[in-house]
Amino acid sequence: MQNIIDAIELKCQNQGVEESSQLLEFQVFFNDHVLNDFNELFKSLPPERRYFAAGVPDSFHGRVFPRESLHFVHSSYAAVQILSSVPKEVMDKDSRVWNKGRINYSHSSDEVVKCFEAQHVKDMENFLNARAEEVVLGGLMAFIFPARPDETLHSESFVNKTTTLLGSCLLDMANKGKISHEKLDALNIPVYFTSPQEFKKVVKQNRRFSMEIMESQDQEKPKPNVLSCTIRGGMGGMFKKHFSVEEELLDEVFDLFQKKLEEQSSLVYDSGYAINLFVLLKRVI
Amino acid sequence: MQNIIDAIELKCQNQGVEESSQLLEFQVFFNDHVLNDFNELFKSLPPERRYFAAGVPDSFHGRVFPRESLHFVHSSYAAVQILSSVPKEVMDKDSRVWNKGRINYSHSSDEVVKCFEAQHVKDMENFLNARAEEVVLGGLMAFIFPARPDETLHSESFVNKTTTLLGSCLLDMANKGKISHEKLDALNIPVYFTSPQEFKKVVKQNRRFSMEIMESQDQEKPKPNVLSCTIRGGMGGMFKKHFSVEEELLDEVFDLFQKKLEEQSSLVYDSGYAINLFVLLKRVI
Repeated sequence: MQNIIDAIELKCQNQGVEESSQLLEFQVFFNDHVLNDFNELFKSLPPERRYFAAGVPDSFHGRVFPRESLHFVHSSYAAVQILSSVPKEVMDKDSRVWNKGRINYSHSSDEVVKCFEAQHVKDMENFLNARAEEVVLGGLMAFIFPARPDETLHSESFVNKTTTLLGSCLLDMANKGKISHEKLDALNIPVYFTSPQEFKKVVKQNRRFSMEIMESQDQEKPKPNVLSCTIRGGMGGMFKKHFSVEEELLDEVFDLFQKKLEEQSSLVYDSGYAINLFVLLKRVI
Repeated sequence: MQNIIDAIELKCQNQGVEESSQLLEFQVFFNDHVLNDFNELFKSLPPERRYFAAGVPDSFHGRVFPRESLHFVHSSYAAVQILSSVPKEVMDKDSRVWNKGRINYSHSSDEVVKCFEAQHVKDMENFLNARAEEVVLGGLMAFIFPARPDETLHSESFVNKTTTLLGSCLLDMANKGKISHEKLDALNIPVYFTSPQEFKKVVKQNRRFSMEIMESQDQEKPKPNVLSCTIRGGMGGMFKKHFSVEEELLDEVFDLFQKKLEEQSSLVYDSGYAINLFVLLKRVI
């Protein structure tokens, strides 16, 4: 936040409107789904902050703000790759594209991959349309999100490799009788990792935003212990609820996950492609 | 909320701008101090609500919103009577106005009462100034708060009588050795119950708002069990923290409080004056 505020103030000063920069006020909305712990968030805000803070509980896949009320939108690792839901057909036992025995699509048939891709495209269309209503004309959106390089197979991307490995840990737990096989079959992770070309196409088709900047950045691959913690932070709650298990079982799953990441380092770390995409979009229509 | 939305939509329709009423969007900010449970609040919002919701964590005694960003402010029982803090001097053992042996001012010396009154006036001045920055010119604020009728002694008001009775319950606990006498001496409740005349004067002196409506409403006195629950809801957390006690001790305090309310019904209920003030203020400067 401080970076953004500093940048805007600097711009005002450079344009010789120093006085008005002192009159500038900032309101920052922190958006997350309703079950996020907003209490923790609010307690952790710096007391000496230079902005008014507000928490906004609801899914960013739909409208969460009034029309033309935002000037700048930012998401770091928390929007573009997240699906509103797993595509229904891949969870349907009677469907040709049932994604049995896997928690993601990276080693699945092309048809399954297409389902996830289609869901991503649909979600992004809704996401961009919702933001286009909320952001003022000329307003900016800056996103950073994990992606896979163009021309790279889904199975070759680092993020997909780690998810697949996590799936194998859950399968081990099911084989030991610690979680239900049936519930494991009913679990897919609602994420999709797009590529620069794919993302460009989605933005172009939507037409409401121009792509001002797109940069591929090498993603530093987090060490096994850090990665295990991070993914537990993002998915632990969902696992607990889905499998009706306690924190202790999560300990076991993520200890095993960390161990496998270390053992299979060459497979996951050395041969997995990892990029972050940084994109800056501007509302034009 | 629905009442306010309905009223605005009705106004649009009456003015023959029915189409624009369909384009109306509402954003509602729920403000409370940082330690409020915003998670519970967000979970309890109606899913089919017709407004965008946001939580705003911070004290309303200072600025919490950007300039000119609010059209309508409402508080029911949660702003005007609450002080930003207990006046320092009444908590000072070396001061002439130390409010020893009491948790409120209703039976204290005139000097002590003046301290609470002065704190209220100062807090209201800050409160009105902060809101005057945040509310658009012509914007409205509607407050409902417990007060005492004009010309009524503080000691005769129902809300003060109940607080005094609660103080006697805490003293009983201290005499039984269940809470510390020293900590009880260090406790005053940060509330002040104003009167219609006093409140009018504060608003007039502030000059930023005109008083559009002021209505005294008879306050239905809640039954002992309801009142005990309500006051526990508002003060229980503070007591637990202040006395470093568990929930069980609160059970005891508020059971005793309910019992005393029943026993001393004629003193508290029959002879206690209780009004709510409804005021509508409009920003004029």
